[in-house]
Amino acid sequence: MDLAAIHAAFRRIAPYTHRTPLLTSRLLDELLGKRLLLKAEHLQKTGSFKARGALAKALTLKAPKGLLAVSSGNHAQGVAYAARVLGVKALVVMPEDASPFKKACARAYGAEVVDRGVRAENREEVAQALLEETGYAFIHPFDDPLVMAGQGTVGLELMAQAGKAGVFPEAVLVPVGGGGLLAGVATAVKALSPTTRVYGVEPEAADDARRSLEEGRIVRLPEAPKTRADGVRTLSLGAHTFPILRERVDGVLTVSEEAILEAERLLFTRTKQVIEPTGALPLAAVLEHGARLPETLALVLSGGNRDF
Amino acid sequence: MDLAAIHAAFRRIAPYTHRTPLLTSRLLDELLGKRLLLKAEHLQKTGSFKARGALAKALTLKAPKGLLAVSSGNHAQGVAYAARVLGVKALVVMPEDASPFKKACARAYGAEVVDRGVRAENREEVAQALLEETGYAFIHPFDDPLVMAGQGTVGLELMAQAGKAGVFPEAVLVPVGGGGLLAGVATAVKALSPTTRVYGVEPEAADDARRSLEEGRIVRLPEAPKTRADGVRTLSLGAHTFPILRERVDGVLTVSEEAILEAERLLFTRTKQVIEPTGALPLAAVLEHGARLPETLALVLSGGNRDF
Repeated sequence: MDLAAIHAAFRRIAPYTHRTPLLTSRLLDELLGKRLLLKAEHLQKTGSFKARGALAKALTLKAPKGLLAVSSGNHAQGVAYAARVLGVKALVVMPEDASPFKKACARAYGAEVVDRGVRAENREEVAQALLEETGYAFIHPFDDPLVMAGQGTVGLELMAQAGKAGVFPEAVLVPVGGGGLLAGVATAVKALSPTTRVYGVEPEAADDARRSLEEGRIVRLPEAPKTRADGVRTLSLGAHTFPILRERVDGVLTVSEEAILEAERLLFTRTKQVIEPTGALPLAAVLEHGARLPETLALVLSGGNRDF
Repeated sequence: MDLAAIHAAFRRIAPYTHRTPLLTSRLLDELLGKRLLLKAEHLQKTGSFKARGALAKALTLKAPKGLLAVSSGNHAQGVAYAARVLGVKALVVMPEDASPFKKACARAYGAEVVDRGVRAENREEVAQALLEETGYAFIHPFDDPLVMAGQGTVGLELMAQAGKAGVFPEAVLVPVGGGGLLAGVATAVKALSPTTRVYGVEPEAADDARRSLEEGRIVRLPEAPKTRADGVRTLSLGAHTFPILRERVDGVLTVSEEAILEAERLLFTRTKQVIEPTGALPLAAVLEHGARLPETLALVLSGGNRDF
């Protein structure tokens, strides 16, 4: 997965996605003593960057009968939207106890939600059985080079928009769960600007990415971590994302639950934008690690799907 | 107060205010069967349009010692911001039992909040005593032609932005409390496009503007109305705003509390924008009166100051 793959993904998905704006906030800049560029993926189709990766993959499939995803969150909506673009059906396997709000979101985008008797432990089996039964195409939430390339279009746009605004981001901060978004963004940013640092951000309670990069092997969490940031409760990085992160990412910053909450509050009250906890991770990193970060920072606000 | 006054106000305040964007939402358009243009005053300095009127007035004052306002809401922040621009002090008289959040907002913009022993009934007296004591200049929240002209810049920008986008708003919907925003916007819109209809929107529980226009006299509510829309709890229109509304406004639509809440929810979940209840009034009117409104509508989202 390289810059050419991201360019190709961009050409495929451009007709169906927004070039989300790069927002600034003088209030936040003054408060934090930084110059922040906020990549507004909460304003992307489906309310998160996940539409990019799902579309980037789905648009390479030859006449699929339908799309199938396992997700309790934004990936479900991304795949539902991709299926709508293709004019096929979407099946989403979700645990029975997943939030009714998230289920309603997936249904609102046209997906059929399969949740009867589904638990975190058996959902892969349920998905496998459905794949065999339906012949639908499986879209992985992160561990697929085409999905990663799709998420990388966030980095492509971000650097182009910053350049147009005449601002040079010294570092880019990206939430990391399975690593698809981080791998894509790091690939684009490092190709376009090798001196720009790229950091992943994850909750302290879900520090597998940090440990994986430090130990040089994929560290797996023993169970789903308890964190507000429900978009990064993944147990581990993927076989495809890990080597890319090792090569192209400068480090992973971990943040406390208090910092995440405070970052959400700042985004809500100061920028008037609805950002979900996972999307607030980069700002939480500025709150907790600002002293050792450069002045001009691009933050990827990954999504805004939260209940009213 | 006419278009020339609004142009003059625009020239005074332009260096200190944002040209807020005119947002669109395909999701909302599909859901409501309309074409909506959302004037995003929640992204204005101080989080509401009130900064415009306060500045438009304050910048005409000759070397004021300070500014004084009576407000339990966004006008307090507007005046605090105007005082900061002028480099003078701001005093804001607020009832002792006003929300701590709103007091904190006013203080965050540098105002000194006077609330000891202040009640809704005696706050005018308290303000009068302070004016005599301090010699500060009083900034009325709405009943002043210079303040109205400042709020009218919302309409000026809106029509210019719609024209640039090649969209013609058949009607403009504006929240109405004391009538400053509605008077200003109606003046700008009717001068630039006489066939565009202009409607005020107010809660059913605070229907004094509708009754005032119907009865041809200023109808005063017996007590502060109970409504979620705390920005329009004003008891009546003003002596300066009423005649302008009579001349330039096509009607006032009233909306239920349920519609306001649903409009807030839609703005939050679909557009990912933080809008306060008062700012959601125009969308509430589309929900309740959509059938008798034209297709292309500009809605003034007046503010976004709500607690996280």
